[in-house]
Amino acid sequence: MANIAILGFGTVGSGVAEVLDMNQAEIRRRTEEPVAVKYILDTREFPDSPYAHLVIHDFSVIEQDPEVSVVVECIGGCGVALDFTSRALKAGKHVVTSNKALVAAHGLELLELARQNNRNFLFEASVGGGIPLLRPLSFCLAGNRIEEICGILNGTTNYILTKMIHENRNFDDMLRRAQEKGYAEADPTADVEGLDACRKICILAALAFGRHVYPEQVYTCGISGITTEDVACAEAAGMALKLLGRTFRQEDGRFVIYVSPHLVLSDRPLASVDGVFNAVLIRGNAVGEVMFYGRGAGKLPTASAVVGDVVDCVLHNDKRRSLGWGESRPADLADFSQVPLRWMIRTRAASGAVGAVFGQVEYLPGRKDAFLTAPMTKAALDGLREKGFSLLSAIPVLS
Amino acid sequence: MANIAILGFGTVGSGVAEVLDMNQAEIRRRTEEPVAVKYILDTREFPDSPYAHLVIHDFSVIEQDPEVSVVVECIGGCGVALDFTSRALKAGKHVVTSNKALVAAHGLELLELARQNNRNFLFEASVGGGIPLLRPLSFCLAGNRIEEICGILNGTTNYILTKMIHENRNFDDMLRRAQEKGYAEADPTADVEGLDACRKICILAALAFGRHVYPEQVYTCGISGITTEDVACAEAAGMALKLLGRTFRQEDGRFVIYVSPHLVLSDRPLASVDGVFNAVLIRGNAVGEVMFYGRGAGKLPTASAVVGDVVDCVLHNDKRRSLGWGESRPADLADFSQVPLRWMIRTRAASGAVGAVFGQVEYLPGRKDAFLTAPMTKAALDGLREKGFSLLSAIPVLS
Repeated sequence: MANIAILGFGTVGSGVAEVLDMNQAEIRRRTEEPVAVKYILDTREFPDSPYAHLVIHDFSVIEQDPEVSVVVECIGGCGVALDFTSRALKAGKHVVTSNKALVAAHGLELLELARQNNRNFLFEASVGGGIPLLRPLSFCLAGNRIEEICGILNGTTNYILTKMIHENRNFDDMLRRAQEKGYAEADPTADVEGLDACRKICILAALAFGRHVYPEQVYTCGISGITTEDVACAEAAGMALKLLGRTFRQEDGRFVIYVSPHLVLSDRPLASVDGVFNAVLIRGNAVGEVMFYGRGAGKLPTASAVVGDVVDCVLHNDKRRSLGWGESRPADLADFSQVPLRWMIRTRAASGAVGAVFGQVEYLPGRKDAFLTAPMTKAALDGLREKGFSLLSAIPVLS
Repeated sequence: MANIAILGFGTVGSGVAEVLDMNQAEIRRRTEEPVAVKYILDTREFPDSPYAHLVIHDFSVIEQDPEVSVVVECIGGCGVALDFTSRALKAGKHVVTSNKALVAAHGLELLELARQNNRNFLFEASVGGGIPLLRPLSFCLAGNRIEEICGILNGTTNYILTKMIHENRNFDDMLRRAQEKGYAEADPTADVEGLDACRKICILAALAFGRHVYPEQVYTCGISGITTEDVACAEAAGMALKLLGRTFRQEDGRFVIYVSPHLVLSDRPLASVDGVFNAVLIRGNAVGEVMFYGRGAGKLPTASAVVGDVVDCVLHNDKRRSLGWGESRPADLADFSQVPLRWMIRTRAASGAVGAVFGQVEYLPGRKDAFLTAPMTKAALDGLREKGFSLLSAIPVLS
């Protein structure tokens, strides 16, 4: 019998309990022993829940119970979640989390703490919800030098962009729709401004390149500035408009990491990923391009990933060899503003002025105000803007 | 230092040596010790290869060398490959293989032999080439009851079908093109008649449902009977034409497994997977649908998967807990001929005769000779054919 404790009985925490119940037989076939929830830690009571009798309020009960081998952290944030995760690892328990903020900010120290205590710290659910991503990247693709990772990492923004395109509506209306449907939170900032995608691409980059990247180091632009005109330009270009987290290795060995809306060529596999779905493309020097697709959020999909990690902890109770990462040396990260990219530019400037500044450009079919540039840096664009050149939009193109 | 031996120095075997060399630094970061090829077993000499000095012809050298911890089997088939795999496991070595014929026919006994000898028998490369599939299915999705797996599992046939559709050419011409490009073998039977896809869906079903399924148990129909008229019907229906391996759980708990060309609704993620690419859709009761996409064959992609397994063996030299499967009980498998499916039917029969036999049907736009049926069994269709009803084509529809 493997006993687990769930910290935080919100959407994900209750989903974990539900999946463990619903799929008992399947899970037992894999683990060869039953997996039971012994405690649920929350500040609230849940008198009407079938798990009411498991609810406790004092973490030290879990910490001191030698029968608890796996702690599932679903509290979120970096406050008590960090404290409890550290204490659980020190108390000799494996920790599984869905908390991307925690992993992106403290993954380095928590992986080291897990190593010192010979326990696992697993976080498959922190990126891409239920989509298997971190384990395939770390193990199945271990024979590759990873060249690039590029993904639709946030379902809320993908839903909003998809709706803006298909229904020709503006950002504010579609954000409200997403909130009504429960796809966006009351405070949507972390989603729409790209911070959520940023945390996730940081975690993917750390696993791929072996260096922790902090969200503060990453150029991040969300979708709140995307207009119906940008959508129309994407359509004119025959491309999809997607918020992407992206990291790739430059020829000089440094890596680029950023979050931004992109125009995506329609024959690229990411282009057809619509609605709340997520997808991540990984390019390795041996495997070429592989893509992983599925529901990036939601109660049961996220719980699916958490339970997968729990099963792994139970199967490898003596610790599976984890793949950690090291300190980020600033020299590893390229300055995003100096990275050459192709851009879709929307401008009030006449074609003569455009030609003088950008040289040969490719105007979008049927548009006199929008064109694609040759590769150029964001610094150069910023310089033009400072000089008063009209840049209504500047969106990178994923070719 | 982890020493490995490669059996068979053909496309995959030489790719494994190449990937281990090319990505030494990356692999060492993961394994924490160098991985070196100590022997290459082949009946041939390779005097011009940089690995010429490693080539040997006597398997017992490998079998008896305690320094060799991992044996990579790339011989193919079930002759010496089976013999050497068994002997390597008995000699206390982990075995990694890309050999789907071996796994589909002898996976059950080889997994048992690995268990007895406390070694790993890993075969990620046997399905989907470089695409991470088996490990995500077995571990990341371990919290799910798997409801369905459906995949484009053979790049050769997907290339031929894609070309038939995009260039409006017949099967024989496009098979010849595939052979010229090296995508199809001189004897293309295993690919075009669906046997290769069959072996792969058998392996996926075994991992998902925990029961070995032998290829002989599986209804298998390839693409050699697909005509330009079928392609035209798929276009009229607005659907893609794909050879799919498919397995799903029926309500009675039994599972269906078969290989057949399908019409696929264009908004389904599998519909846009073209050319030599493979993709596998897995539906779990918690995660919903996830899809894995990439190159399903080729030297380096396949070697990528093999090397991922080698890294896993080196990391978990004391054996990782493997997920095997048990004997297939015949009662677990549904009789394919009794499974209700929707079909696209092409016929010479007039609409009156069609209505009398099929009831209400949905004719394809612009076609008087082709329609979609309500769900019905293959047995019923076979009965109609026996009675002399004209059935030029009968292709299941994936909805």
